[in-house]
Amino acid sequence: MAETKRHYFDWAATALPDNRLTAEAAIGSQPAFANPSSKHLEGRTARETLENARVKCAQALSVKPETLYFTSGGTESNNIVLYSMLKKTGKGRVMFSAVEHPSVRDNCYVLEQFGIPVTPVAVEKDGRVNPKIFIRTLEKHPDTRMAAIMSVNNETGAIMDTGEIVRQIRQSDLPVHVHCDLVQAAGKILLDIKSWGIDSASFSAHKLGGPRGIGLLYLKKPVEPLFAGGQENGIRPGTENIAGAMALAQALQEFCLPDAVAANTGPAQERWNFLIHALKSNNRFSLIPEDRTENDPRFSPWILQARFKGIPGEVMVRALDSEGFAISTGSACSSSHKERPVLKAMGLDESSSLEGIRISQGWTTTGDDIEALIAGIDKVLRLL
Amino acid sequence: MAETKRHYFDWAATALPDNRLTAEAAIGSQPAFANPSSKHLEGRTARETLENARVKCAQALSVKPETLYFTSGGTESNNIVLYSMLKKTGKGRVMFSAVEHPSVRDNCYVLEQFGIPVTPVAVEKDGRVNPKIFIRTLEKHPDTRMAAIMSVNNETGAIMDTGEIVRQIRQSDLPVHVHCDLVQAAGKILLDIKSWGIDSASFSAHKLGGPRGIGLLYLKKPVEPLFAGGQENGIRPGTENIAGAMALAQALQEFCLPDAVAANTGPAQERWNFLIHALKSNNRFSLIPEDRTENDPRFSPWILQARFKGIPGEVMVRALDSEGFAISTGSACSSSHKERPVLKAMGLDESSSLEGIRISQGWTTTGDDIEALIAGIDKVLRLL
Repeated sequence: MAETKRHYFDWAATALPDNRLTAEAAIGSQPAFANPSSKHLEGRTARETLENARVKCAQALSVKPETLYFTSGGTESNNIVLYSMLKKTGKGRVMFSAVEHPSVRDNCYVLEQFGIPVTPVAVEKDGRVNPKIFIRTLEKHPDTRMAAIMSVNNETGAIMDTGEIVRQIRQSDLPVHVHCDLVQAAGKILLDIKSWGIDSASFSAHKLGGPRGIGLLYLKKPVEPLFAGGQENGIRPGTENIAGAMALAQALQEFCLPDAVAANTGPAQERWNFLIHALKSNNRFSLIPEDRTENDPRFSPWILQARFKGIPGEVMVRALDSEGFAISTGSACSSSHKERPVLKAMGLDESSSLEGIRISQGWTTTGDDIEALIAGIDKVLRLL
Repeated sequence: MAETKRHYFDWAATALPDNRLTAEAAIGSQPAFANPSSKHLEGRTARETLENARVKCAQALSVKPETLYFTSGGTESNNIVLYSMLKKTGKGRVMFSAVEHPSVRDNCYVLEQFGIPVTPVAVEKDGRVNPKIFIRTLEKHPDTRMAAIMSVNNETGAIMDTGEIVRQIRQSDLPVHVHCDLVQAAGKILLDIKSWGIDSASFSAHKLGGPRGIGLLYLKKPVEPLFAGGQENGIRPGTENIAGAMALAQALQEFCLPDAVAANTGPAQERWNFLIHALKSNNRFSLIPEDRTENDPRFSPWILQARFKGIPGEVMVRALDSEGFAISTGSACSSSHKERPVLKAMGLDESSSLEGIRISQGWTTTGDDIEALIAGIDKVLRLL
């Protein structure tokens, strides 16, 4: 049996590994293997290497190194911020956009079990947070102390107007900590952490071609974490993952600096335009949301949510898989569930939402991959 | 300046990396890079690879694969178990040995802030848990629902009689979950998880020559974790670290199978005997505890706690460091603190405890390293 050539279109679940970064993780760390809390030469070398990695991350993100903390990934970064609410006296409310990643949404409901009031905030039909609606909800709940608003949605690619949302939250004069899940934003859109004025942000290395098990947390000011432990200035306990930190630093430098984002986004947008244009000729096809256009500035050109009328997303995923294409429905983190809360929040009815598929691309995706995908979808639609 | 040859004696803080394992982590994972929650071929391959790693871990530990959960490290494994207490109705007491690793002890006191009563249990002068004392304390506190008792102490190498302690706890008929930090035990003593009858156990890859950012949690029965998320059967959220899991599985197979432990422990004990014998000729030297002997079955032959009268441990660490030897005082995880709670629990006074140093060896430590260390200590003592 001839092997089908594979085309990977699930970069939003995890990026194709960049060999330079994983090699860095394995080999680059050898001289810095020791425990950076140790006082001997090996420990000091490890500490220096870790702090150099932090400086490189800080340069790539235009923030101060002392505002960055290495974690085991995006989920842990989110949880450190969310669960710091349990340590606050007079536990205030947590508001979150209705399209947050499951790692945020589900853990907000855990906080609720501990007596912390939580409020999801409705989004527009395009899946974007409307600053006015957010502020109106906030004003209804002046006990709010934290707001979680991702910058790029992992299922639709919807780009939030983070700077404007934060500006309006600040006008409310309420002491609200604004947390921003930047896992799908890093390397994909221009980040402006400082001028956005967010209080914290999460990053994951493996969405940037780096290894698993390493992430980053930006904290404008330290929060009081739930877990005790001295590492990472008391923010994240556990022996520091130096090899991972080096690889993450390299990944941020490679993909998150403004020049890199600009250089990568242009071709990505062109590939996406080509894909959207071709698929639109099929009358069963519609984008989610339907009014998404080519070059649409509301959406990341790395993620596409779409559906084919009458075909369940899961069927489409299986059919394309057997033709050599790796796509997904929604978040891999919730792919065992039979629900699409993000699409429902955008107003899709149950059956339409279950037709949703996600196609996501990356830096090494080529025009040939796109052409193959168009042909593959065409073939699958004729078979189904 | 000629470079001083280095001798690494801080394996208890972190092992020298085993290149086979770190290479496995970087290269071995390439075909299994995808998100194991994804439904496509790449995702299924990733899932299969992850589950194969779990089976290999299970074989090495003689437990069922479905009782093992990959985490980001020993600290996180401990915390998943400890913080599950917050999810229990009728939050019972947590008891822990007074010599637990800071990641356990400090987090027990966090639980206390949430209304969970906690009780440290005194140990013998040799730093070992006395089952009778533990049971007596338990009987005084019939509200106890969890007991944390490490199997090998990270500062002294004291080996607990885990099986006997658990046997006596079970006789009490109280529904106590027994958690066992096996981070310093794995690969160093024979493990017998099933017949010990413990309910949970923690492991860390980097103490076994593997990479950072990956650990393991054994759970006889699932606990209800604090954090929400579907991965690892709902026990540990976050995209699974497959490369890390493969390396950890390899490390457990390499170092934790009974034959490997037996083959490695004999020579380790001989090296330790040689070291102890030589150091005992110095009248300022004493072991901690003082009655530790060569071939002492109460102690792991991989860790030695000792002191030189009148010389602060930190001074000794610095002096030996400049002669090419990497040793430590206590746990790297608390090296910024000026206290030695483990030694205090053993009855040492403040000033004696601050003289404590830890020497720890590993699989690649040689007789030459030991001879060099003996000469190095001799030189340092003449200089100080």
